[in-house]
Amino acid sequence: MTLEVYWGSGSPFAWRVLLTLEVKQLPYQSKLLTFSKQEHKSPEYLALNPRGKVPTLKDGDFTLYESLAIMAYLDRAYPERPIFGRTPQETGTIWQKVSEGISYVCEPISRVTGPLLFGGASEKESEIRAAATTVAKELAHLEAAVAKSPWLAGAAISAADIVVFPWIQLLLRAAGKEAAKPLNLGFLPLATRYPHLAAWVKRIEAIPGYERTYPPHW
Amino acid sequence: MTLEVYWGSGSPFAWRVLLTLEVKQLPYQSKLLTFSKQEHKSPEYLALNPRGKVPTLKDGDFTLYESLAIMAYLDRAYPERPIFGRTPQETGTIWQKVSEGISYVCEPISRVTGPLLFGGASEKESEIRAAATTVAKELAHLEAAVAKSPWLAGAAISAADIVVFPWIQLLLRAAGKEAAKPLNLGFLPLATRYPHLAAWVKRIEAIPGYERTYPPHW
Repeated sequence: MTLEVYWGSGSPFAWRVLLTLEVKQLPYQSKLLTFSKQEHKSPEYLALNPRGKVPTLKDGDFTLYESLAIMAYLDRAYPERPIFGRTPQETGTIWQKVSEGISYVCEPISRVTGPLLFGGASEKESEIRAAATTVAKELAHLEAAVAKSPWLAGAAISAADIVVFPWIQLLLRAAGKEAAKPLNLGFLPLATRYPHLAAWVKRIEAIPGYERTYPPHW
Repeated sequence: MTLEVYWGSGSPFAWRVLLTLEVKQLPYQSKLLTFSKQEHKSPEYLALNPRGKVPTLKDGDFTLYESLAIMAYLDRAYPERPIFGRTPQETGTIWQKVSEGISYVCEPISRVTGPLLFGGASEKESEIRAAATTVAKELAHLEAAVAKSPWLAGAAISAADIVVFPWIQLLLRAAGKEAAKPLNLGFLPLATRYPHLAAWVKRIEAIPGYERTYPPHW
């Protein structure tokens, strides 16, 4: 059975799935869609994913979309190197950190990065600042977590790390943009502001195959 | 081992956990917190859940919060009457519908119900209308799904139904409020607008123990 992954450059949702595949050491066929050519809105693609979003996974005849669903599926279908834990308690704790990551980290990061990457930063300065304050508070929680253990949910890499990581990269990218400089949001350099989190980023970047997941043209 | 659930009246997140326990026929001790007395911000409760939100589950010494995490934990710890499927494909499909439910149904519903239930409806009329348009489109998808099969992810009740149901109830409640009448949002009566969805609501209301999950004073 060949796994096929449809993704697009810079989508943090798609990045989660690529990282999952590398962490689980599952071979896959990469189907990179070009957003600027509207390949994610083509009739062929909409037949796989009617919402016209990435990622989508094909595993033989079985098609699935939504990043968390794909991660949960892959972990159940291919249980080696689990990303959702080995015991009910581990599973619960990992899902708690996944949920907290989505609601309290990724969502406010999207309110910082959206205007910085896609325009409107000067009109939305107060919204960006408010979201950045929330993000800073949550990054402090993450910093404390990875100061205590190498990964967000303990001794092994898990879905919690994979869900949050692409959004941290997106934040760093947006914070380095010209439009971000006058705002002086305080996230850079990460190694000075959040040294344990910077080391955690480096640990993920050291995963074999990581370079295959990195967004082209970033 | 006794399961203890901390919840509050009207929280759709807590309602998911109570429904999960009833669907899985797990006995539990109900710990109803009174929001108006700030019981969810007491030092004792913050020791269990530092975010001061509901729900929180205690299973013996193990404490967990975030509704999806509790659902995933319970299904793994007590696998009878599964809510996340019996095969990897079922698990994937259910999580896809859970993710879609959260992003595309619950989130826009919160933008309709928030101002209607907690004030600010007249100032936010255009935001409410925009969100209501999204909600209506998604309700049409749900209507089509439960016209084809009794439950959102097929022949058996699953996490997909449990995640969305409290938000549908919240929407119906908000749509019936005085502040909603001038907006004429078009959700009521559900049995006329979305007959299959109304039948699905009745199927959930018929689950033994449902009355124990219903928000007091609603």
